[in-house]
Amino acid sequence: DAIEAAENAAAEERDRDALKDLFKFDPKRDPELITHAAYPCNAEAPARALVDAPITPTEKFFVRNHLPVPDIDTTTYRLAVQGPGIPDGVALSLEDLKKLPKKTVTVTLQCAGNRRKDMHDVKPTKGLQWSQGAISTATWGGVLLRDVLKQAGYNTPPSTTTTLPDDDQAISHVQFHGTEGYGASIPFHKAISAQGDVLLAYEMNGEPLPADHGAPIRVVVPGYVAARSVKWVDRITLSDEESWSHWQRKDYKGFSPSTEMPCEEDYENAKSIQELPVQSAVLLPAKGQNVTLTEQGEMVCKGYAVSGGGREVVRVDVSADGGRTWTTATLKPAATDARPGRQWAWSHWDAKIPVSSTIKGKEVEIVCKAVDDSYNSQPEKMEGIWNMRGVLSTAWHR
Amino acid sequence: DAIEAAENAAAEERDRDALKDLFKFDPKRDPELITHAAYPCNAEAPARALVDAPITPTEKFFVRNHLPVPDIDTTTYRLAVQGPGIPDGVALSLEDLKKLPKKTVTVTLQCAGNRRKDMHDVKPTKGLQWSQGAISTATWGGVLLRDVLKQAGYNTPPSTTTTLPDDDQAISHVQFHGTEGYGASIPFHKAISAQGDVLLAYEMNGEPLPADHGAPIRVVVPGYVAARSVKWVDRITLSDEESWSHWQRKDYKGFSPSTEMPCEEDYENAKSIQELPVQSAVLLPAKGQNVTLTEQGEMVCKGYAVSGGGREVVRVDVSADGGRTWTTATLKPAATDARPGRQWAWSHWDAKIPVSSTIKGKEVEIVCKAVDDSYNSQPEKMEGIWNMRGVLSTAWHR
Ligand SMILES: [Mo]
Ligand SMILES: [Mo]
Repeated sequence: DAIEAAENAAAEERDRDALKDLFKFDPKRDPELITHAAYPCNAEAPARALVDAPITPTEKFFVRNHLPVPDIDTTTYRLAVQGPGIPDGVALSLEDLKKLPKKTVTVTLQCAGNRRKDMHDVKPTKGLQWSQGAISTATWGGVLLRDVLKQAGYNTPPSTTTTLPDDDQAISHVQFHGTEGYGASIPFHKAISAQGDVLLAYEMNGEPLPADHGAPIRVVVPGYVAARSVKWVDRITLSDEESWSHWQRKDYKGFSPSTEMPCEEDYENAKSIQELPVQSAVLLPAKGQNVTLTEQGEMVCKGYAVSGGGREVVRVDVSADGGRTWTTATLKPAATDARPGRQWAWSHWDAKIPVSSTIKGKEVEIVCKAVDDSYNSQPEKMEGIWNMRGVLSTAWHR
Repeated sequence: DAIEAAENAAAEERDRDALKDLFKFDPKRDPELITHAAYPCNAEAPARALVDAPITPTEKFFVRNHLPVPDIDTTTYRLAVQGPGIPDGVALSLEDLKKLPKKTVTVTLQCAGNRRKDMHDVKPTKGLQWSQGAISTATWGGVLLRDVLKQAGYNTPPSTTTTLPDDDQAISHVQFHGTEGYGASIPFHKAISAQGDVLLAYEMNGEPLPADHGAPIRVVVPGYVAARSVKWVDRITLSDEESWSHWQRKDYKGFSPSTEMPCEEDYENAKSIQELPVQSAVLLPAKGQNVTLTEQGEMVCKGYAVSGGGREVVRVDVSADGGRTWTTATLKPAATDARPGRQWAWSHWDAKIPVSSTIKGKEVEIVCKAVDDSYNSQPEKMEGIWNMRGVLSTAWHR
C-alpha cells in the first residue's frame, strides 16, 4: 500500500544518504567525464579529450576508484616501509620523501577493464561497461620507489654483482596498501630495477597530485595495469608473497574463454595481470558520426595505441573494409624521449583512408590494430580472449 | 640435341660441384633433421625430437645457416671488440674469453620463419616452408657479453647512477659479424643489462659448441629472434647504428598485410624483429595420426609454447572443436629455475581433451594458443599478420 511504499522510499533514501556520506571526501569532478558508477567513482575520459592529446588534461583523466576517497592530513601522513629487506621498519613523512631526488616520468595508465563493453557486446561480462576511455596519460613527478627502498635501508646491490637482487628468495613482491583500504603488489624485480621507473608520485602534470588521483602520494607503475598504481599509498611491504588483497588474488586475472565462472582454484592458478598486452582504439570519427572526406577522397581517422612493459608501438593498421585492406597509420612523435625498453606512454596515430566510391555515402566500420616492438599483435576477435570479468579486452577495435 | 643436352648436364654438374665445394666445411648432420635446403643448410627439428624434451638433443637442434659453415683455426681465432665505448680496439683469443667467469643459460632459439608454412598455406609467402620445428632449446655455456665489453674496456656504470648506459647516444646498438659473412645487431641496453643474459657461447649442452652451431664462439641472445644470435662471431662493434647487413636492414622485419611487396622505404620504416611474440604449437598427435583415446575417452595432446623478451608462458588453451570449447593445458615445469622477467626457455605442455561421441572415429582438428605473462595472446588467423616474407607466423596452431 501507499504507506509501505513511502516507508520503502524513505529507507532507500536513508541508505543512499549513508552511502553518500562515506564518499563525503570525494572531490567535484569534470562534468565531461563519462560516469559509469558514482560511488565509488568510475568515470572514463571522453574521446574528444584524448584525441591529439599526448598528455591528458588532469581534470579529464579517467577515475577508477575502488572505495571512497580518503581524508588525509598531509602534516601527519606517514609512509610505512617494511619487510625482510628493511632492517627496521621506517615511517617517512611527506617532507622526508620530497628530500629524495625528484624524477618525472610520463606514463599511460590503463584500466584492466578498458574496452570491456566491446567484449561484453560479444558475450556478457561482469563489470562496468567501459568504452575506450579507461586510459589516460600524465607526467608524474615524485621519487623513485627504488630510492625510497634504499632510503629505508634496503641495500641495492650494484649492477656489477652476478647475484642479483631478484635472486633473494625472501623478497619477490612489493605490496602496496592504500589508506582507503585498497591493496596490490608488483614483482620486486620491477620495483628495484634501475630501468623500472616505478614512482611514488606527488605531482601530476606539474601540479600537486589531486585527491582523486591519490594525494598526497600514489604509486605509478609504468607499463603495468593501472590496478597496481595504488593511490593514497601509506604502507609498502617487501614480501615473498603477492598482496593478499581481494584485487590481487580474486580479481584482475585472465582466464580461458571456457572458464565461464572461475572458482577459488582457478584464481589461485591464474597469473595476476601486471604488464598489459598491446592495445589500440579509434577515437575519431566517433561512432555514428558523419564524416567529410578530404579533397583526395580520404577519411581521416585518429586514435591511440599502447603496449605494456615499456614496449613501443611500432605500427598501427587501419581498415575501412573489415580488414580486407589496411592503411598503415602515421605514429605521432611520443610525448617524451623514452629510453629503449622504457616506452611508458601511448602513441597517438592518424591515418587517411582512401574511401572507395562503392562505400561513399554508406555507413563504414573502421577497424584498427597495433603491433608493438616485440611484434605482439592484437587478436582479431573477442571470442578467443573472452573472460567473465571482461578484462584485457584488446581485440581489433571496430 | 643429344650433344647439347649432355653439355648442359655437364655444366650443371660443374655448377653443383662448385657450389658444394663452398660448403666443404659443412659437417655431417643427423638424418632425422628435416632439410628444407641443403646449401646453405636449413633443416628443422623433427617433432618427435621436440616432444617432452625441454632440452633438444644437440644433433636434432634445428640448423638455419645463411652461408657456408666457415673453417676456423681456434688457435689463431680472435674476437675483435671495438667502437666508441672501447678506448682501444681489442682482439681476444679463445683463451682470453675462457678466463672470464663462465655462465650457463638455457635458451630457446626460434627462427623468424618458424611455422612459415602455416602462413604460406593461407596466402603465398617467400621463403623456406618451415613447419613448427624451426625452434630448439639448449643449455649454452660461455661468457656474458657484458663481461666481455667490460674486459675490452667498456666502463659499465653501477646500477646506482641515474645516468644509465643507454642514455649514451653514441652507443645504441651492438653489431655482430660472423666469419662466414653474416651480420646482425641488438639494442645496446639488452647487451649491457645485468638481466639481459646475452652470452658468447663456446659450449652447447655441456659439450664444445659444434661447427654447425657457430664454433668456436657464437652469440646467444635470450628472448630474441634467433637471427640475432650470430654464429662464428669474430667482430663486435658498439655503434649508434644497427648492423648494415642485409639481414638486419632488408630482411627480418614485419609489415602490414597490405604491404605485399615491401620497397626500400618500407624496410627503412619497419622495425627490426628482436623480441619475439608469443607462440605455440601442437607436436602430438602428428597430422593425420590415428589416435587411441584414454580410458576416460580423452585425447592426449602435447606441444610447446614460448614467448620473447623473457616473458613466461602462463596458459595454453587447446581445442578439438575449432575453438568453441577450450581445455587449459598443464604446463610442464621449466627446464631451469628462471628468474622473473628472464624466462628464456620454452614451456612444454600437455592436455587431455574430452572427445565427444559425435566426433569419435572422425578426423579432428586440434587447435592451440598460448598467453604469456604480459597477457599477450596469439592472433586467431594468419590473415591479419600475413607478410610477404612469412615471418612472425604465430596465429593459433591447427
Ligand atoms: Mo582497473
Ligand atoms: Mo631465422
